[in-house]
Amino acid sequence: MPHEQHQELLEALHECMEACNHCYDACLKEEDVKMMVDCIRLDRECADICAYLEQAIARNSQFIPQLAAVCAEICEACGNECKKHDHEHCQRCAEACFHCAEVCRKIA
Amino acid sequence: MPHEQHQELLEALHECMEACNHCYDACLKEEDVKMMVDCIRLDRECADICAYLEQAIARNSQFIPQLAAVCAEICEACGNECKKHDHEHCQRCAEACFHCAEVCRKIA
Amino acid sequence: MPHEQHQELLEALHECMEACNHCYDACLKEEDVKMMVDCIRLDRECADICAYLEQAIARNSQFIPQLAAVCAEICEACGNECKKHDHEHCQRCAEACFHCAEVCRKIA
Amino acid sequence: MPHEQHQELLEALHECMEACNHCYDACLKEEDVKMMVDCIRLDRECADICAYLEQAIARNSQFIPQLAAVCAEICEACGNECKKHDHEHCQRCAEACFHCAEVCRKIA
Repeated sequence: MPHEQHQELLEALHECMEACNHCYDACLKEEDVKMMVDCIRLDRECADICAYLEQAIARNSQFIPQLAAVCAEICEACGNECKKHDHEHCQRCAEACFHCAEVCRKIA
Repeated sequence: MPHEQHQELLEALHECMEACNHCYDACLKEEDVKMMVDCIRLDRECADICAYLEQAIARNSQFIPQLAAVCAEICEACGNECKKHDHEHCQRCAEACFHCAEVCRKIA
Repeated sequence: MPHEQHQELLEALHECMEACNHCYDACLKEEDVKMMVDCIRLDRECADICAYLEQAIARNSQFIPQLAAVCAEICEACGNECKKHDHEHCQRCAEACFHCAEVCRKIA
Repeated sequence: MPHEQHQELLEALHECMEACNHCYDACLKEEDVKMMVDCIRLDRECADICAYLEQAIARNSQFIPQLAAVCAEICEACGNECKKHDHEHCQRCAEACFHCAEVCRKIA
């Protein structure tokens, strides 16, 4: 089963999707929202591609490596933006993104 | 946090999304694929709405109750189709669908 | 064909999806981004459900009425938020949202 | 505006998404559904990535080239499968897929 072979990736994607969506929500509530606009954008880019790849794995898509390569790049970009900000939600999101990027690269 | 309040729902949605995508993949490999066409359709309807609602919860959407009502109905329909078939993937999918429908109805 | 029966709805959804995504992008570039946070959120809620319903119609889903009911409600909420703001992208988005809500309600 | 720069791509993606979803629906109604299983799978892979990329362009994503590269590959694979089948929906889908793959490659 692809969802068994890819268990580590599925978990990384799921945590990253949740962390990004949570960071998106929290950024929109910050006082300094102007500073967070790139983070808001990238959080949603990253959450969406992670959710997409989760489903692709679950349905045994033949395009997992290609999608994982794009996902790794988006996770990396989101992690780099998030780590610039001291908010706890950003720091946790950066961590989830970098971990997910790393696991994606193993499959890509 | 919405993703903490809705932990039971998030888990039910995630299991249902995985079970439906797995059932979709397995149905397409069955000898008797002609018998499985409604199951194939409903598996994807159900997987997609579950994945959609998972993200909506994670980003703290204000439309969770309305989406959960639609999701409950789709899960119920998918469960009813799946339970007609003896394949283990269908039986497991039916179970995940009925559980998810029930948890969705609590929120709807 | 569902995509022929529902031509008016498909067009309304597509215009609304584009207007909402454009408004989301433009709001994130505004000086007064703090004032636009609800608009940013609702733009993405609305774009996502419109895109979802477009695909559901195109694949001849049996759940079009239920999805259209939720979509109408989200479009209405997004239109109400957008019309508060004088930016041209918000005004155009409000118009697309209200039109889409109206067409959705005919199907729902 | 990205949605103006990318007008040709947006149209190709939209036609391809509609053709693939229609082909998916029509394949599931064919007598010889067993022969159509790869087509059913690829139709949904292709419809989903096209819909995804449409939204990414509309929201001015910074990852359009990378997503277009994956999309081109999926469109190509779907077109190659569809063109094996004489059904009119398959032939029309193949055409939409090959055109979309070509336009994607210009951006990728």
